[in-house]
Amino acid sequence: MANAPVQRMSQLLAKTLRDDPADAEVLSHKLLVRAGYVRRTAAGIWSWLPLGKKVLANVERIVREEMDAVGAQEVLLPAILPREPYEATGRWEEYGPELFRLQDRRGGDYLLGPTHEEIFTLLVKDQASSYKDLPVILYQIQNKYRDEARPRAGILRGREFLMKDSYSFDTEDEGLAKSYALHREAYQKIFARLGLDYRICAATAGAMGGSKSEEFLAPAEAGEDTFADCPNCDFAANTEAITYELKPVDGSDVPAAEDIPTPDTPTIETLAASLGVPASATLKNLLVKVDGEIVAVGVPGDREVDMDKVEAHFAPAAVELVTETDFAARPDLVRGYVGPRGLEKVTYIADPRVAPGTAWITGANKAGTHTKNVVAGRDFEVGEYVDVVVVQEGDPCPKCGTGLVLDRAIEIGHIFQLGRKYADALKLDVLGQNGKPVRVTMGSYGIGVSRAVAALAEQSADDKGLCWPAEVAPADVHVVAAGKALQTELALDISQKLAAAGVRVLVDDRPGVSPGVKFTDSELIGVPQILVAGRRAADGVVELKDRRTGEREELTVEEAVARLTA
Amino acid sequence: MANAPVQRMSQLLAKTLRDDPADAEVLSHKLLVRAGYVRRTAAGIWSWLPLGKKVLANVERIVREEMDAVGAQEVLLPAILPREPYEATGRWEEYGPELFRLQDRRGGDYLLGPTHEEIFTLLVKDQASSYKDLPVILYQIQNKYRDEARPRAGILRGREFLMKDSYSFDTEDEGLAKSYALHREAYQKIFARLGLDYRICAATAGAMGGSKSEEFLAPAEAGEDTFADCPNCDFAANTEAITYELKPVDGSDVPAAEDIPTPDTPTIETLAASLGVPASATLKNLLVKVDGEIVAVGVPGDREVDMDKVEAHFAPAAVELVTETDFAARPDLVRGYVGPRGLEKVTYIADPRVAPGTAWITGANKAGTHTKNVVAGRDFEVGEYVDVVVVQEGDPCPKCGTGLVLDRAIEIGHIFQLGRKYADALKLDVLGQNGKPVRVTMGSYGIGVSRAVAALAEQSADDKGLCWPAEVAPADVHVVAAGKALQTELALDISQKLAAAGVRVLVDDRPGVSPGVKFTDSELIGVPQILVAGRRAADGVVELKDRRTGEREELTVEEAVARLTA
Repeated sequence: MANAPVQRMSQLLAKTLRDDPADAEVLSHKLLVRAGYVRRTAAGIWSWLPLGKKVLANVERIVREEMDAVGAQEVLLPAILPREPYEATGRWEEYGPELFRLQDRRGGDYLLGPTHEEIFTLLVKDQASSYKDLPVILYQIQNKYRDEARPRAGILRGREFLMKDSYSFDTEDEGLAKSYALHREAYQKIFARLGLDYRICAATAGAMGGSKSEEFLAPAEAGEDTFADCPNCDFAANTEAITYELKPVDGSDVPAAEDIPTPDTPTIETLAASLGVPASATLKNLLVKVDGEIVAVGVPGDREVDMDKVEAHFAPAAVELVTETDFAARPDLVRGYVGPRGLEKVTYIADPRVAPGTAWITGANKAGTHTKNVVAGRDFEVGEYVDVVVVQEGDPCPKCGTGLVLDRAIEIGHIFQLGRKYADALKLDVLGQNGKPVRVTMGSYGIGVSRAVAALAEQSADDKGLCWPAEVAPADVHVVAAGKALQTELALDISQKLAAAGVRVLVDDRPGVSPGVKFTDSELIGVPQILVAGRRAADGVVELKDRRTGEREELTVEEAVARLTA
Repeated sequence: MANAPVQRMSQLLAKTLRDDPADAEVLSHKLLVRAGYVRRTAAGIWSWLPLGKKVLANVERIVREEMDAVGAQEVLLPAILPREPYEATGRWEEYGPELFRLQDRRGGDYLLGPTHEEIFTLLVKDQASSYKDLPVILYQIQNKYRDEARPRAGILRGREFLMKDSYSFDTEDEGLAKSYALHREAYQKIFARLGLDYRICAATAGAMGGSKSEEFLAPAEAGEDTFADCPNCDFAANTEAITYELKPVDGSDVPAAEDIPTPDTPTIETLAASLGVPASATLKNLLVKVDGEIVAVGVPGDREVDMDKVEAHFAPAAVELVTETDFAARPDLVRGYVGPRGLEKVTYIADPRVAPGTAWITGANKAGTHTKNVVAGRDFEVGEYVDVVVVQEGDPCPKCGTGLVLDRAIEIGHIFQLGRKYADALKLDVLGQNGKPVRVTMGSYGIGVSRAVAALAEQSADDKGLCWPAEVAPADVHVVAAGKALQTELALDISQKLAAAGVRVLVDDRPGVSPGVKFTDSELIGVPQILVAGRRAADGVVELKDRRTGEREELTVEEAVARLTA
C-alpha cells in the first residue's frame, strides 16, 4: 500500500474555536466552523479549509465510485451557461430571483447553472443520433448556484454548493424506469457507505416537472423538510407529497341546512367556542386570487392550508391572498362568514376531507351568520378536489391507516423520472428501430455533495464535537502528542509508521499547546480513532481511544501500530 | 491491484468526426472536438465529454500529488466572490471588462473569481495570528472566469477554465524565496510527469503586481506567447520580459547636428529610401497620450514599439495613440517630422538602444525636414529609458550576446513573488517573534489545468490524431474488435483480463462499424497502445500497435496480456 500523508497540526490551516459563531443556528454550522472545516466568505458562500476539503473529497470519491459502478459516464459541463436553452424550456423566467443571471462584455445573457437539464439535453442531441446510442447515463460533480432568499444553516443551504447531478436518456418508458432503478440502487449504496441514516420518501416533482420522484431524506433537527414515517408499514413520504384519498360518505340522514345566528365569530376559534363544537366540525373557506381570479379553498376548520400545495396546484399561475381591496370590490363576500353555499362567481376547490356527503358548519355569506348541516355535494358543489392541507402528526398512513409520525430531515438526494418535458422543449429525438424519429425520455438525479457533509455532521456529532464515520473522516487516526519533546517525537514516529502502511494520519504536534487543549480539539475535530502519546511514552506505551464510545485502552507502540494497520 | 474500469465504445458518449469543426483554428481545438473529448457550449465555454474528463482528471491528480508532496494544503474557495476585497486592492476596477460581474437578488455586487489573491489573503488573516502559524502554502483546483474579448482556440483560452492556484504566506523575504523555490520544483515535476516539453522563462508580472516571476511555457504553434531562447546559453524569457541594457557610446566625434530637406518622407520607409540609409540609422518618435498628456517614445527606425510594454510602464495610467485632433491642437508637433531636438512640452522617453552618444537621423519638427547627426545626450535629453521595442529574432541574448531564437508557446504555469502588495491592501499582519506585528509577504502560483490538456494535445498530436503521454491518456490500452462476433468476444474477454490487473481499457466493441473506421478512430483518440483482435483471432493471435511509432507486433493473447500488465 502506498504511503499516506501525515498532516501535522503545527502546520495545518485550521483554527479551532471554543465558542459557537454568533450567526450559527444549526449544529453542523456551529461545529464545522468551530473545528476549522469551513469558513464563511459571503452570505451563503463558503470556503472549505484543509480538513473540510478532505471530507468533501471523500464524499466525492464515494459518489464517483458508485456512479461509475452503474455504468454512468462522468462529464464536466460549464457552470456559466447561455440563456437560450433555459429560455426554450421556460426556466429562465420560472426560476425567478433564485437564478443568478449575468451579462458578458457583449451584453449576452448568461446564468449560473442551478441544474443542467437543458445543457445535457442539448449535449445528447449533439452526440446521439440513433436508438443504438442509448440508453446513456451522464453525471458530473460540479458547483451549482441558487440565489436563496435566506441563505442559512451554513453549508446546509448555500448559494454555491457542490452537487452530483446525473441525467438518463432512454427511448422507452421501461428504459427510463431501469435507469431510475439503477440510480435508486446506487444512491442506497452511496448513503450506506457515507454512514448516513436516511429514508426514501415519495416526493413532489417541484420545479423540475415530470412524474415519478423520490427523495432521500436524512433525519436531522436542522432539516428543512418534514417527512412522515409510518410506524406500522414501510410508508415514508415528504409531507408535501402526501395526498389524502377522496372517500365519499353517506350524508342522506343529515337534516336540511339551517342558518344560525353567530354574531362576533369571524374566526374558526371564536365560532367553535361559541357553538361548543370542535373546530373539526366546521368548514374553513380561504380566499385566494389565482392570476387575479378569486378562488375559495375549503378545508376542515382544524386544518392549516399548505400554501406551497396550493401554489403547486395552480403553477405556473401566480397565487395571492385576497386583500381589503378585494373584499371592498366584492360586497357579496363577507369576511369571516364566507361559505360555499350560494357562493357566486367564485371557483370553489376543497380538500378531499370535505368529501361528498360530509356535513359542516360554515359561513352563510351573511354577516354574523353561519349555516349548519351543510352537506358537500348536496348543498354545494366542489369544483375540484385538491389535497391542500398541512399534514399533521397522527394523520392516517395512506397505505395502512396507522397514525403517521412526523420528523425533520435534510434532503440529501432526489431522483426524478422527468419524462419528455425537456426533450419536447428542445426537440431531442433519435432515429428509432423502425427508422422513424423517437422522442427521448429523461431522468434527472441529484446528490447534494456539500450538503451530505453537513448532514453527516448533524447526524454523527455528539456533545463533544464532530464524530465522522470512518470512510469520510479527514484522517483514520488522530495522534496526540500530550507532553513535551519525548511525546512529540514518539507521536511523529508512530505517525510515520502508520502512514507508511497507508493509514491517513492527523498528528497534533503543536508545541506550547497543553494536553487538555489537544484532547478537546481532537474530540471537536472528530477523527474516529485517537492515539495519545502521553505519560507512559517513555515506556513505549500509548493510549488508543475510540472517539464515539470514549473507550480507552493502553497498548505498546507495536500493538497500537499493528491494531491500526490491521 | 484493484479492478480498473472497462469503457465500452458501444456505450460511450463520444461521437468522432471526420472533418474539422468550422470554427476551429488551432490543432488541439480541431482534434479534441473531432475525437469527442470536448464540445462547445457557448463562446469560450466548454463541456468535457467522458474521454476529455478522464484526461482532465489525470492532469488534476498529478498536480494534486506534487502539490501535496511539497506540503501545500488543499482547500476549496468559492468561485462567486464579494466585491469588497477586490475593491480594497483596486482590482474590481483594474480588471476592466475581463471580470464577470453580477448582482444577487438584494443588489449586492459579486464577481466570478479570475484569481483568488484577495480571498486567500483574508482567509489567512482569519486563520493565522502568529509567525508560528506561518509559513503556509494553500492551493485549490477550481474553475476560474475571465471574460476574454476574443475567446479562441478551444480550451486553450476559455472564459471558464480549470486552474490550480496556490498562494504562499511568509513573514520573511527568505521564506517567500523558499516557497517560490518549492513551487518551481513542484512545477518541474508536474510538467515532466505530464510529458510536456516546456521552458522556464523570465516573465513580467502583469496585472498581479510584485517582483520576481517566471513562466512555464510549452512551445507550440498555437501559443499566444512568444519566447526567446538562447542557442548558446541557458537564457530563456518571454519576449515581453526581455529588456535591453543601456550601453552609452562615445559620440564625441559626431559632427554637429544639421537640418536636411526631406520632402515627402513622412514615414521611416520613405525617409530611409530617399536618403539611401538603413532604417536602423533613423530615430522613430511615436506620440502617445498618457492620461491625456502627450509623451514621445523614441526607438530605432527599424524597430516596432510594443504597446503592451508601453502600457505596462505607465500602468495604471491609460495610454492612447494621438489623433488628428491632438495634432490640430498642437501645431508645433508636425506629423511625420517629429524629433526630440527642440521638442517642448512633451515628455520624451526612449528605448535603451537610443543610448547616450548614439547618433540619429530624425525629424526636425518642421514639415519636409529632418536633422542628421542628432546625438542622444548632446542634442536632446531622454527623460527616461524604457525598453519598449518588440524583441526580434537575432536580437542579442542579454546574458551572452548570441542571437536569440524566437518561438511561440502556451503559458502552462506561472510563479510570482507577489511580496506585500495584497497584504498591504488588506492589512495582513501576524505577531512577530519580537511581539510586534509583521506584515506578511506572499507568493501566487498558477497552473492552467484545462489549458495543459490543450498544450499536451498540441505537442503530442501527429497527422493521424491525438497521441497522449501514458500518464494522462484516457486509457492505457485501446482494444479494437476488428471483425464480427468472434473478434468482439475476444476483445471483451481480453479487456476484462486487463482490467482485472488494473489496466485501464477502452474497447471498441461497436457493432456494425467497419475495422477501417475503428482503426482511424483509435488513432484519432490517441491511447498509447492499441490491441487489435482481427483476422487471426480464431488462433488466439492479436496485434499490438504502438500509437506513436506505429510499430506492430503479433502476439498470442497470453503474451499480449502479460506484456500489457507487466
